[in-house]
Amino acid sequence: NEDILIWVNGDLKPRAEAVVSVFDSGFVLGDGIWEGIRVHDGQPVFWEQHLDRLLEGAAAIMLDIGMTREELRAAVEDTLRANEMRDGVHIRLMVSRGVKSTPYQDPRVTVGPATVVIIPEHKEPLPATVRDGITLFTTHVRRATPDTLDPKLNAHSKLNDITACIQAYTAGADEALMLDPHGFVATCNSTHFFVVKGTPEEPEVWTSDGRFCLAGITRANVLQVCRDRGLPAQERTFSLTDVYSAQEAFVTGTFAGVVPVRSVDGRTIGTGARGPVVERLQGWYAEHVAADAARRSAS
Amino acid sequence: NEDILIWVNGDLKPRAEAVVSVFDSGFVLGDGIWEGIRVHDGQPVFWEQHLDRLLEGAAAIMLDIGMTREELRAAVEDTLRANEMRDGVHIRLMVSRGVKSTPYQDPRVTVGPATVVIIPEHKEPLPATVRDGITLFTTHVRRATPDTLDPKLNAHSKLNDITACIQAYTAGADEALMLDPHGFVATCNSTHFFVVKGTPEEPEVWTSDGRFCLAGITRANVLQVCRDRGLPAQERTFSLTDVYSAQEAFVTGTFAGVVPVRSVDGRTIGTGARGPVVERLQGWYAEHVAADAARRSAS
Amino acid sequence: NEDILIWVNGDLKPRAEAVVSVFDSGFVLGDGIWEGIRVHDGQPVFWEQHLDRLLEGAAAIMLDIGMTREELRAAVEDTLRANEMRDGVHIRLMVSRGVKSTPYQDPRVTVGPATVVIIPEHKEPLPATVRDGITLFTTHVRRATPDTLDPKLNAHSKLNDITACIQAYTAGADEALMLDPHGFVATCNSTHFFVVKGTPEEPEVWTSDGRFCLAGITRANVLQVCRDRGLPAQERTFSLTDVYSAQEAFVTGTFAGVVPVRSVDGRTIGTGARGPVVERLQGWYAEHVAADAARRSAS
Amino acid sequence: NEDILIWVNGDLKPRAEAVVSVFDSGFVLGDGIWEGIRVHDGQPVFWEQHLDRLLEGAAAIMLDIGMTREELRAAVEDTLRANEMRDGVHIRLMVSRGVKSTPYQDPRVTVGPATVVIIPEHKEPLPATVRDGITLFTTHVRRATPDTLDPKLNAHSKLNDITACIQAYTAGADEALMLDPHGFVATCNSTHFFVVKGTPEEPEVWTSDGRFCLAGITRANVLQVCRDRGLPAQERTFSLTDVYSAQEAFVTGTFAGVVPVRSVDGRTIGTGARGPVVERLQGWYAEHVAADAARRSAS
Amino acid sequence: NEDILIWVNGDLKPRAEAVVSVFDSGFVLGDGIWEGIRVHDGQPVFWEQHLDRLLEGAAAIMLDIGMTREELRAAVEDTLRANEMRDGVHIRLMVSRGVKSTPYQDPRVTVGPATVVIIPEHKEPLPATVRDGITLFTTHVRRATPDTLDPKLNAHSKLNDITACIQAYTAGADEALMLDPHGFVATCNSTHFFVVKGTPEEPEVWTSDGRFCLAGITRANVLQVCRDRGLPAQERTFSLTDVYSAQEAFVTGTFAGVVPVRSVDGRTIGTGARGPVVERLQGWYAEHVAADAARRSAS
Amino acid sequence: NEDILIWVNGDLKPRAEAVVSVFDSGFVLGDGIWEGIRVHDGQPVFWEQHLDRLLEGAAAIMLDIGMTREELRAAVEDTLRANEMRDGVHIRLMVSRGVKSTPYQDPRVTVGPATVVIIPEHKEPLPATVRDGITLFTTHVRRATPDTLDPKLNAHSKLNDITACIQAYTAGADEALMLDPHGFVATCNSTHFFVVKGTPEEPEVWTSDGRFCLAGITRANVLQVCRDRGLPAQERTFSLTDVYSAQEAFVTGTFAGVVPVRSVDGRTIGTGARGPVVERLQGWYAEHVAADAARRSAS
Ligand SMILES: Cc1ncc(COP(=O)(O)O)c(C=O)c1O
Ligand SMILES: Cc1ncc(COP(=O)(O)O)c(C=O)c1O
Ligand SMILES: Cc1ncc(COP(=O)(O)O)c(C=O)c1O
Ligand SMILES: Cc1ncc(COP(=O)(O)O)c(C=O)c1O
Ligand SMILES: Cc1ncc(COP(=O)(O)O)c(C=O)c1O
Ligand SMILES: Cc1ncc(COP(=O)(O)O)c(C=O)c1O
Repeated sequence: NEDILIWVNGDLKPRAEAVVSVFDSGFVLGDGIWEGIRVHDGQPVFWEQHLDRLLEGAAAIMLDIGMTREELRAAVEDTLRANEMRDGVHIRLMVSRGVKSTPYQDPRVTVGPATVVIIPEHKEPLPATVRDGITLFTTHVRRATPDTLDPKLNAHSKLNDITACIQAYTAGADEALMLDPHGFVATCNSTHFFVVKGTPEEPEVWTSDGRFCLAGITRANVLQVCRDRGLPAQERTFSLTDVYSAQEAFVTGTFAGVVPVRSVDGRTIGTGARGPVVERLQGWYAEHVAADAARRSAS
Repeated sequence: NEDILIWVNGDLKPRAEAVVSVFDSGFVLGDGIWEGIRVHDGQPVFWEQHLDRLLEGAAAIMLDIGMTREELRAAVEDTLRANEMRDGVHIRLMVSRGVKSTPYQDPRVTVGPATVVIIPEHKEPLPATVRDGITLFTTHVRRATPDTLDPKLNAHSKLNDITACIQAYTAGADEALMLDPHGFVATCNSTHFFVVKGTPEEPEVWTSDGRFCLAGITRANVLQVCRDRGLPAQERTFSLTDVYSAQEAFVTGTFAGVVPVRSVDGRTIGTGARGPVVERLQGWYAEHVAADAARRSAS
Repeated sequence: NEDILIWVNGDLKPRAEAVVSVFDSGFVLGDGIWEGIRVHDGQPVFWEQHLDRLLEGAAAIMLDIGMTREELRAAVEDTLRANEMRDGVHIRLMVSRGVKSTPYQDPRVTVGPATVVIIPEHKEPLPATVRDGITLFTTHVRRATPDTLDPKLNAHSKLNDITACIQAYTAGADEALMLDPHGFVATCNSTHFFVVKGTPEEPEVWTSDGRFCLAGITRANVLQVCRDRGLPAQERTFSLTDVYSAQEAFVTGTFAGVVPVRSVDGRTIGTGARGPVVERLQGWYAEHVAADAARRSAS
Repeated sequence: NEDILIWVNGDLKPRAEAVVSVFDSGFVLGDGIWEGIRVHDGQPVFWEQHLDRLLEGAAAIMLDIGMTREELRAAVEDTLRANEMRDGVHIRLMVSRGVKSTPYQDPRVTVGPATVVIIPEHKEPLPATVRDGITLFTTHVRRATPDTLDPKLNAHSKLNDITACIQAYTAGADEALMLDPHGFVATCNSTHFFVVKGTPEEPEVWTSDGRFCLAGITRANVLQVCRDRGLPAQERTFSLTDVYSAQEAFVTGTFAGVVPVRSVDGRTIGTGARGPVVERLQGWYAEHVAADAARRSAS
Repeated sequence: NEDILIWVNGDLKPRAEAVVSVFDSGFVLGDGIWEGIRVHDGQPVFWEQHLDRLLEGAAAIMLDIGMTREELRAAVEDTLRANEMRDGVHIRLMVSRGVKSTPYQDPRVTVGPATVVIIPEHKEPLPATVRDGITLFTTHVRRATPDTLDPKLNAHSKLNDITACIQAYTAGADEALMLDPHGFVATCNSTHFFVVKGTPEEPEVWTSDGRFCLAGITRANVLQVCRDRGLPAQERTFSLTDVYSAQEAFVTGTFAGVVPVRSVDGRTIGTGARGPVVERLQGWYAEHVAADAARRSAS
Repeated sequence: NEDILIWVNGDLKPRAEAVVSVFDSGFVLGDGIWEGIRVHDGQPVFWEQHLDRLLEGAAAIMLDIGMTREELRAAVEDTLRANEMRDGVHIRLMVSRGVKSTPYQDPRVTVGPATVVIIPEHKEPLPATVRDGITLFTTHVRRATPDTLDPKLNAHSKLNDITACIQAYTAGADEALMLDPHGFVATCNSTHFFVVKGTPEEPEVWTSDGRFCLAGITRANVLQVCRDRGLPAQERTFSLTDVYSAQEAFVTGTFAGVVPVRSVDGRTIGTGARGPVVERLQGWYAEHVAADAARRSAS
């Protein structure tokens, strides 16, 4: 990824020249929104979902992106084309409120248009991660409330997740399991969390009620895939008591898809190895991604 | 301020060249901390308080600044010298976690040292603001809790304050008055909030209990000045009912010092003009700043 | 409405003589419950729902109305007959705990029976409101919790809603959008709130989970109508992030039925004009009301 | 009290004619504020405190009383004079937002001025109450939060207190002990709550931190009296665990002054009889009242 | 029950000799989990559900029971056989973390295996209770949150429920109705709570959303039975306002099955006598128990 | 400690015979209260504070200990005498509600008197702990609220603390740092927490506001000692941001007195070695203990 070209406000720049002003709203204040998108077979998969979430975030923080849906799509395509990237690609599409006349938080001191940056990378999850999974640790760092910094926003102000992440690796785990303000299981610091409950014969998949998570696109796709294939799947409010005795657990995200969880808070989940439901879901999800890419290539 | 030189990781750069990588933790994630500092008579006033708060923030988010207290001070002095700035100067000192190998939130993918930026500007509050004051509007956007994104942190993840600010100006006011999670008055989106209570003969000054605010340096100095001059001043928990019937109100911040508040939520505070206590405090605070600068020049 | 006759404890009084004692529990303490009811084609529409809600409120505050269901119905009919009112009529049916021996809050000092007042008025929503809609502003004033003053109660203690209303019009809007204690969207100060989500081709209608709202009769009817006509409609917990990017939004209430929302917090909703889903719903709801009235006339 | 004359908007009316319109904001919506005031030796004691609290409440709910401080005072005096009342008198001074054009909650439909009512009564606490005290029961009904219906407001919307009162007497007690939203002891439904802690030799008096109570005038006076006489008294946050093992407990209010508490939640407090500290405080408070009245008569 | 034999760590002991060390984790710290199980026709009914809940609790508190599912089952059977018990039997199966080297809370000072105790008793609900029902009183004692002491745990640390129970009987009622932290109806101190809503013709059964209750086995069975027989039943969040006007109410638990509720907070529910829905449910539940026992006997 | 004699309901029993019934309220339900007391020079130090706290707890849970203050004291003395213990002794005094007729939570099924157990042990903190200190980890497990299980109670229902303890050692730390329900620093799972703030020249000592902690006797003594010796010490609400940058930190408890904290959440506190303020406090506290013992021996 050393030689990639990065889209910065309309120009394709080599890595070393891909910069923003120190007066940029993104740098000074974390005042921006972003998406992480996978490219499969040359296609940005689930593009509309990502674009909708980006626009939703922009409306929420009253940020005028200054580009149409079509222009954003074209920019992504230009970037991929310039980098000759087709598979195993991860894109970070970032939009900040733009350059400010002075480093002060009020959006009214912004001068000039939004800053749009598209970073494309060759980036794949490690096979060991996908097979053996990760460990989680529940942190005292909680999800924020919608009236402070809505966890629905995929924003540049990420310190809430970052401090959770730090606490988790300080405890020796890979990722933080985060609770909602009421003490129920919400989500992880950069992925969504699922458990497999029920019985081995009649498994069902649970994820949190979603009120204190990002509106995860992989989460929605996994729920969709379960429904399509007849595996019962619910969004519901549950506590760690339900987690520790789950048969299996996994996390989801655009980057790594479906990843097994070996343990939570030092309690081995199931056998500690990837379970049958997770393995099945990984296959289903891969097919779902491939189908989306195929549909796009076809049209 | 078009021709200022900005300190970026050891180099003094003209405005147009003062940039950070799009892989910078500050830009990608709002992962950094900062201070706003006034320069009076060539001296960065209240320097130790600002430096302590910066280091406290760095410890809280486990960010290694990579510079000593002395080096940070020297960098500020170099910047001022290079710009030949002595008075009416505002400095933004920003430290992000540095450049990342890939735009992902985990601090473990950071490569290289912290990014340190010092922006010096000629910047003074408008005389009309200082004299006539501003209007406030209480927003539904609340202060965050310490277990999500501690309001004690002066961080680059500022969207909580920014969305409050937007809501306030949408309502036609200048600044947002923000409540704590329990509904008590906490602070404003970029300043601290005080009311003058008691009687005209025996005024006393109240500010919030401070649990959901930045550890404001001007706030602390104003409380100090009140105590020094015998004006009773308390930090306490109070509600809007106490605000609407206050005799006077004001906000404080490093940039503008002490600024009167004309109205809150459409209720005129006192007469609606700057009151005697605020005016006295403005004088006292100016003397306090001058004394600090003088002490520094002397030593 | 100057010449209406008002039912006061069994007597029909002209407006100027329709009074209650200054010792009345309703006046002294807001200790009472009420309903707003539309009359269509001479029929009090949705009468049973209103009556049930009234009795539920009475049970909740241990208030003995002292009249049977039939007597209450007869009183409403007498009032309509005396006023020769058939259409475009709004009725306020109020029941307070009655006259007290002394103005003290304890219900045990109540002497005499409940005070029952029925005010009938010719009152229609403005056509411009119905067509062009209203603007909302989210207030810091929140919905109360069920363990303080249950928002399920349609009570005479309305200051919570009133202070929200004041805050909204101070911000230049028509009505307050109120959050629940956790920061999610709950309802408006005198109406219920809905958004249209999904896609233009497959719209769906959302309203809040209802936990912190009045058990709105129009809300229930609109949900019913949607289900009857095959428009997906859900009660769910959502945040402002979902609102600002909604395709359409509207409020509901017995008085004005279905009213479009043009903007929320300065963000234009959809095109800012009444959208197709709202327009369709207005029609459906009008039919629903007419059908209820017809059923009553027939029986 | 059957023959009292009641001040209603400038007129002195016999009880049966003291009425307000069914369109009055106080009756329809509990939209008003009030004070209970004692008259001693012909003087409304602690008049300024009561008046300030009334005006503070009016500002909070943006209610224009339409009378000056002097006019309000004169009205009270006229009422007392007309009734030839000097001692053992309790006054209820009520101000609602006035008559509305239609029974709808929005203050903008109010027509005409505020409604002002002054009810004077001969009313004394029972000697048995003052000597033997009352029993309390802690209710699930909690104090409201400042962002819903500020407990600092002495408003006509009293249903929160009333439902607590009902729950307490249903449990066989005289008055409700109410917790704050976090589960700490706040106050009672119509009085303030104090405990005597420390040792019999070195007693100290505690009351709640005051955040979720009315700004009680008797409460403030009792704290004042304690400080004046050297009895340590604190406002602090405490739980029922501290209450059940208190040496003594008492409640305060303008009407009955200082009243002992015999038991809380079935636990006898101290010996169950009025304790020495309460008895002393009753004496001190009586002197404080008398001194205030004397000062007024003298001036 | 004086002559029962109690299973204590593998031995069957007479009542007087059934003891645990004063160093036992259960005694010193309430550090253990338990189940109450009915025996019908010689079979421990709903055995798997009870066993699963026990193991779930053990995982949650990282307690190693040290016995397999089969060994636990055998221990129960041995106990029943030794006592020649077949019907009307209630079993308390308790597992504590075992004996400690010193009475200190840290699980690491536990020496030796878990303590397992099985108490079998002849114990039946009183016929009058089953027919006439009980009274409830809502307490200020709330359900705990999952991040303090998860109400999902059936643990030996029962003081939360016990203090609620005390408060209820102090108010003259039989059992406490407990609210969740947000003020909604959660459950009772030793049973689960249901209301019958809807209309007499189309009744429906509601119980709380379950977030702040034990995962009640009788609760689940009653919901199952309703679904099986076509009686609509929902888990949902509701407030006391919905309770007071319910047509019927009842509580459930392994011990007494389905028990009518005569009144809540002094408000008579329905007619105050056992209603038709409760009576029907009692029958259905008895059949459900009998069917489970029969299935076990058969296999 | 193998040969100690343990006081059980009036009898002194060898360890193996020191037992309670499996029907004991302490074992079945964690329904009891306790104290940990140090013996120095043959004297149970701070005896009155411990006894008061015990009685306060008993009153809170309506438990009748059945012994007078003098009898409890005599029992402790008998136990010490029988064991010939004078120094380095730790006593656990436990009182449960007594034996129940059946293992059901309701206190009304208790038969017979409270169970009183006194375990005396030779037990000293490790010198390495006292010198080098311990490590803390902040857990997601929070302090309970006063309306669920008052953290003021030193009760046998300890699972809240135990699960925090487990989470901390799973993260590799010695003890859990626990937050209050609002996210502020409260206390540890078996000790109280202090930080040293201010400057090295003018240190000051902070501990939490105490609302969500046990009323710690060592905590109170350390605060007292600070005040006596002129070291500023405050109880205040603070967050982890204040902790991570503290100069020193320590925990306190009856057993180990004052113990340094080396790190919190992986952040080294100060130099990571015992600091000067902690060392000084250890000395002062030892003198305070010795003085108390001497005073007792003298009298
Ligand atoms: C906090 C958080 N949760 C979850 C996710 C995964 O969401 P998605 O599946 O949309 O990639 C992300 C991704 O950015 C995230 O930041
Ligand atoms: C949220 C907020 N409050 C208040 C202030 C003012 O604090 P100070 O007086 O330290 O400048 C700032 C300044 O940055 C701020 O960001
Ligand atoms: C607070 C509030 N919300 C909503 C409504 C509308 O409810 P409904 O549809 O039953 O008229 C009202 C009506 O009185 C109300 O007071
Ligand atoms: C809720 C409540 N608390 C306390 C009081 C007593 O306050 P004061 O001492 O000002 O009469 C009142 C009096 O009206 C009250 O309504
Ligand atoms: C708090 C609580 N709720 C409810 C129940 C009833 O649950 P179940 O139906 O599983 O017996 C119990 C039983 O132990 C309980 O302790
Ligand atoms: C939770 C908890 N905190 C703190 C302490 C220390 O308190 P003390 O100093 O009274 O021993 C204890 C002791 O038992 C405890 O259980």
